[in-house]
Amino acid sequence: MFFASDNAGPAHPKVMEALIAANEGYAMGYGADPIMDAVRTQIQGLFEAPDAAVYLIINGTAANSVLLGTMAQPWQTIFCADVAHIHEDECNAPEFYSGAKLTLVPTTDGKMAADDLHQKIAAEQNRGVHGPQRGPLSITQVTEKGTLYSLDELAALSRIAQDFGMQTHLDGARFANALVALDCTPAEMTWKAGIDAVSFGGTKNGALGVEACVIFDPALAWEFELRRKRGGHLLSKHRFLSAQMQAYLTDGLWLDMARAANARCMQLAEGLRGHNAAEMLYEPQANMIFFQMPRSEHKRMRDGGAVYYVMDGDPEVGDPDEPLTGRLVTDWSMTAEGVSQFLDLLRG
Amino acid sequence: MFFASDNAGPAHPKVMEALIAANEGYAMGYGADPIMDAVRTQIQGLFEAPDAAVYLIINGTAANSVLLGTMAQPWQTIFCADVAHIHEDECNAPEFYSGAKLTLVPTTDGKMAADDLHQKIAAEQNRGVHGPQRGPLSITQVTEKGTLYSLDELAALSRIAQDFGMQTHLDGARFANALVALDCTPAEMTWKAGIDAVSFGGTKNGALGVEACVIFDPALAWEFELRRKRGGHLLSKHRFLSAQMQAYLTDGLWLDMARAANARCMQLAEGLRGHNAAEMLYEPQANMIFFQMPRSEHKRMRDGGAVYYVMDGDPEVGDPDEPLTGRLVTDWSMTAEGVSQFLDLLRG
Amino acid sequence: MFFASDNAGPAHPKVMEALIAANEGYAMGYGADPIMDAVRTQIQGLFEAPDAAVYLIINGTAANSVLLGTMAQPWQTIFCADVAHIHEDECNAPEFYSGAKLTLVPTTDGKMAADDLHQKIAAEQNRGVHGPQRGPLSITQVTEKGTLYSLDELAALSRIAQDFGMQTHLDGARFANALVALDCTPAEMTWKAGIDAVSFGGTKNGALGVEACVIFDPALAWEFELRRKRGGHLLSKHRFLSAQMQAYLTDGLWLDMARAANARCMQLAEGLRGHNAAEMLYEPQANMIFFQMPRSEHKRMRDGGAVYYVMDGDPEVGDPDEPLTGRLVTDWSMTAEGVSQFLDLLRG
Amino acid sequence: MFFASDNAGPAHPKVMEALIAANEGYAMGYGADPIMDAVRTQIQGLFEAPDAAVYLIINGTAANSVLLGTMAQPWQTIFCADVAHIHEDECNAPEFYSGAKLTLVPTTDGKMAADDLHQKIAAEQNRGVHGPQRGPLSITQVTEKGTLYSLDELAALSRIAQDFGMQTHLDGARFANALVALDCTPAEMTWKAGIDAVSFGGTKNGALGVEACVIFDPALAWEFELRRKRGGHLLSKHRFLSAQMQAYLTDGLWLDMARAANARCMQLAEGLRGHNAAEMLYEPQANMIFFQMPRSEHKRMRDGGAVYYVMDGDPEVGDPDEPLTGRLVTDWSMTAEGVSQFLDLLRG
Repeated sequence: MFFASDNAGPAHPKVMEALIAANEGYAMGYGADPIMDAVRTQIQGLFEAPDAAVYLIINGTAANSVLLGTMAQPWQTIFCADVAHIHEDECNAPEFYSGAKLTLVPTTDGKMAADDLHQKIAAEQNRGVHGPQRGPLSITQVTEKGTLYSLDELAALSRIAQDFGMQTHLDGARFANALVALDCTPAEMTWKAGIDAVSFGGTKNGALGVEACVIFDPALAWEFELRRKRGGHLLSKHRFLSAQMQAYLTDGLWLDMARAANARCMQLAEGLRGHNAAEMLYEPQANMIFFQMPRSEHKRMRDGGAVYYVMDGDPEVGDPDEPLTGRLVTDWSMTAEGVSQFLDLLRG
Repeated sequence: MFFASDNAGPAHPKVMEALIAANEGYAMGYGADPIMDAVRTQIQGLFEAPDAAVYLIINGTAANSVLLGTMAQPWQTIFCADVAHIHEDECNAPEFYSGAKLTLVPTTDGKMAADDLHQKIAAEQNRGVHGPQRGPLSITQVTEKGTLYSLDELAALSRIAQDFGMQTHLDGARFANALVALDCTPAEMTWKAGIDAVSFGGTKNGALGVEACVIFDPALAWEFELRRKRGGHLLSKHRFLSAQMQAYLTDGLWLDMARAANARCMQLAEGLRGHNAAEMLYEPQANMIFFQMPRSEHKRMRDGGAVYYVMDGDPEVGDPDEPLTGRLVTDWSMTAEGVSQFLDLLRG
Repeated sequence: MFFASDNAGPAHPKVMEALIAANEGYAMGYGADPIMDAVRTQIQGLFEAPDAAVYLIINGTAANSVLLGTMAQPWQTIFCADVAHIHEDECNAPEFYSGAKLTLVPTTDGKMAADDLHQKIAAEQNRGVHGPQRGPLSITQVTEKGTLYSLDELAALSRIAQDFGMQTHLDGARFANALVALDCTPAEMTWKAGIDAVSFGGTKNGALGVEACVIFDPALAWEFELRRKRGGHLLSKHRFLSAQMQAYLTDGLWLDMARAANARCMQLAEGLRGHNAAEMLYEPQANMIFFQMPRSEHKRMRDGGAVYYVMDGDPEVGDPDEPLTGRLVTDWSMTAEGVSQFLDLLRG
Repeated sequence: MFFASDNAGPAHPKVMEALIAANEGYAMGYGADPIMDAVRTQIQGLFEAPDAAVYLIINGTAANSVLLGTMAQPWQTIFCADVAHIHEDECNAPEFYSGAKLTLVPTTDGKMAADDLHQKIAAEQNRGVHGPQRGPLSITQVTEKGTLYSLDELAALSRIAQDFGMQTHLDGARFANALVALDCTPAEMTWKAGIDAVSFGGTKNGALGVEACVIFDPALAWEFELRRKRGGHLLSKHRFLSAQMQAYLTDGLWLDMARAANARCMQLAEGLRGHNAAEMLYEPQANMIFFQMPRSEHKRMRDGGAVYYVMDGDPEVGDPDEPLTGRLVTDWSMTAEGVSQFLDLLRG
């Protein structure tokens, strides 16, 4: 009953086996390993983008930050959701790598509305040299609230950016969870929807620690490489990144894992819907649920062995009737039985 | 016959086993995993420094840069060898993280002389607010030329820094190789010799990718944590760093591996000494040899299957008699037979 | 009828005379001129802060940015009004100098409410190392909307900051206008109200270009000096800054100029109140008015020779009845006749 | 007898008069003043570069740093003399604005030799993504030792840069002194000699504080403007910069002042040559002399009222016979009588 985070679960055994296999003998470092050549081709094929630049990096903060550093200028502002990971959870890393600032677009269920985005972008750069200039748009899919943009919604947002001459970045830390939920192709969820560069996550979906940075305009490739190195993010024993990503992508493992995680989430959601004391805050669409419940109920769950974050208060201290928000995240490794056990506990 | 780099070899099987073992079940991320608690204690014990702050990070460039960012101010200059890795091989990462500049101290065999260091430090900060101010000293041990500072030499350098009110950082990417060669304790090679913070390398000595940052003044700990996060270097599935380091340190594995690497290097050196055409440029003291040989000889070795870097020219193109510099690096995984095979080939 | 900005008017003749006088003979540069010694004492006396560090700098963006760079850390966030100059009009300069980000506190009439500030501060730093940490608070007095914080309101805001262990910066680009409007002492409007450092403006109030940075904790002095130099903001012929500030402060010239500017503003406000077509958006308290009027009226004023900014549309193009916002700023050099002329034109 | 620095002397009366004249009435700020339009045309004409972008900035550190920030990338290294002002005297400002590092080229008399420059450039960027990449070259004319590059020497250096695909910046803090000494045109000393951008100094040659940044490739103009603003270097009352520069350039005032300064320097040099105890270290070619003399002689001069910097020791304390280096700088305001007085004192 561990629903704290999708980065708290184990890596998939096939990923581990690939690591072991990659550990044989000698291999040139820094991305010149032969597995990386295969991975690049694999990802270009997957995205139907034979010219895309493809790089591996150790985590999502680094993927986002090096990409945004490559896409933004230090006198610009990056547009993103007010609950975006790049704003709330990366301790100024995107600003560190880019020099730019962030302009926050309001959200209700974790999603930016096209009108709000348009208004925020239009409001910038009316002060000539005095104010920050318009930089890239960054969209998070799956959002931080567990919701999804439809393909049309993605395209609408990126079209606004494009109309202002801006590029669009996709923070896809949970790319696979979104993809299987939308039942679309990687190309459809990215460049066909106007996305220029993607943080393609693996870590939260069964890898040890690896994300791909996919840049559809190869003209940015060399700058990305220099920024990655300058950030200390070019790994010497790079084959261990390559091997993870190769196993991740082989035989649809990544999609299977995302489907499993999402299925467990839907099972949880159904159970929560049937429970009087709990109220879901957003309609879960991938592998994450936010729900409200009285403090006493959270405490009861915790005492019963359920592990998850309570976001806005201490389950142990305070008015037992006060509603508090819990977050449940599922990953590939959870079983239907584990979820049932949680729901049984919830039902009391 | 692969002597290109000590980061081209495999990780030790025990390190891989530890990864597999660490992959069981759920674990809190970002350094809150239980293995990290054990590792911290292990390293504090090893360094006889129960209050030291200990952090893990994915590679040497990151270890050096986040540490120097914590130790230096953006209006300062960091003193280092003119051949230091932080100057030549990190694409401005130390400057990126610290904002400081580097002042290069001349070297002959990769080592700074105390007099030269003193002169360089004394020459700075005579211009009041106009010039850069004196920042930390960074010493590389093993040096980039495969040589070693004795404990007395280390202490002499750090004492100069201390006399100017400066701190001293040790770039220990090859810490273990130095330690077994000097046959001393970690404490003797660090804080007892005046070192304030250490990049304690694992990657070049049999890990997949992990370095410890050891800071003897715990007052710097929180700033280090924030700078690590802001650089995108705090890993979510941190247990995979912890597990590597734990295996690395258990039962003296790290020392055994370093001894093996150094032994192979001594075997190589002895062979080279007996070879007329080759001349060693520095007295090898750890696991790295620089030697000169005519181009034709390098070509012959390459054709025979030996892999190593020729630093100052193409072995294939040019005057066959021109002497070129080769670099041989050994790691834990090499066998005495492999080295013999190389030497046999050399002898023709 | 020039109401575009208080930095568009001339410098006071006494300031110009002081420049001429300071131009005699030789003087050591970089702040070592004898006039600076006098200015420092003058300002320390004025602020009843004999230990305050006092520096001169060429403009308000530089004053704010170097001060905030000294007060904030690159992993922090600076709290400020959503309409603050440091956010809207300095092209990321505060972020450039500090590395920090900005957290915007909502405003109605240009002022932050204590509750909103508290909520914004409380909401940060709940994510441990993952989110930005709490940095300084920056308050603008006179606000960007021409309104004022009372001394109690200032104290309430800075007390909130203090309770969270944060320092408070005052952007006093229009310090004098605020001071004479509140009829208080510099000490009362700063350190007695909990302010730790002040951008004390001269440029908008009759100087050529000079601001004082006043830091009540002298421990920050040397870092400020280094950051000023590193930003290229230490002037060699510094006596021309010192001379301006000396003349500005002598015999209450600065207060006289601010009183004159404010008086013209009140005259304008009275006239606007009596005009049906115009509606003031905020109660003007210093030297700046924001008012709404139909486009056709703005156009009529412009055609009649009145110069001021229309903030949200082109007075020439669009629906003649659409209300647009005009901004009127007065400075020391305006005459009552000039204002009457404007009001006569307005009345038609 | 004040020879401490050319920024210690007064501004020329015509510059002051221009300031007074520019102070009439209202003028739009931030470079939109009408005088700036005239100055831009004036400088474009002077440099025979009708498309050049021209900006004014308050001092030389800012001019160099904003220009180099515009020309260099943060993963590059800027090549400059080991005694360059951008290295020794700007407290990391060029690094702050550019993110790049500096590679120091050895000098003897303040000048880089073409061979040394070539070797330093060739040695960089051989490490692929690992080392810093080649950024711009920065040449100082007049050098920090008072010597000059001939036009051929300038062209030879910039051609080397060009062959490596690099741009060249000229630090012309003493541009006028060099120009009249070489008796050439601004175009000949800049773009005709391969220079891409110039810090065109006024401050050291009779202005209060103004430098022009002249960029021959207008494609860089907008980025320069944004970087200037982001550094806090766009002045609101910009007309006071424009007015200075206009007066400076009108009727050849700037050339007359430089000729006067250089003439006084030659007078000094002649006197020093005839003095046994003093030895000039470099052949003075503009307005600066470095000379050695026993400590006792420096002390005698100081006691007699001569003011200048002794670079390498305290004239008051130490062996009276030890030779110490003095620096003498002349400016436009010095009289032949003043110099004679100094030389008389020297002769004893």
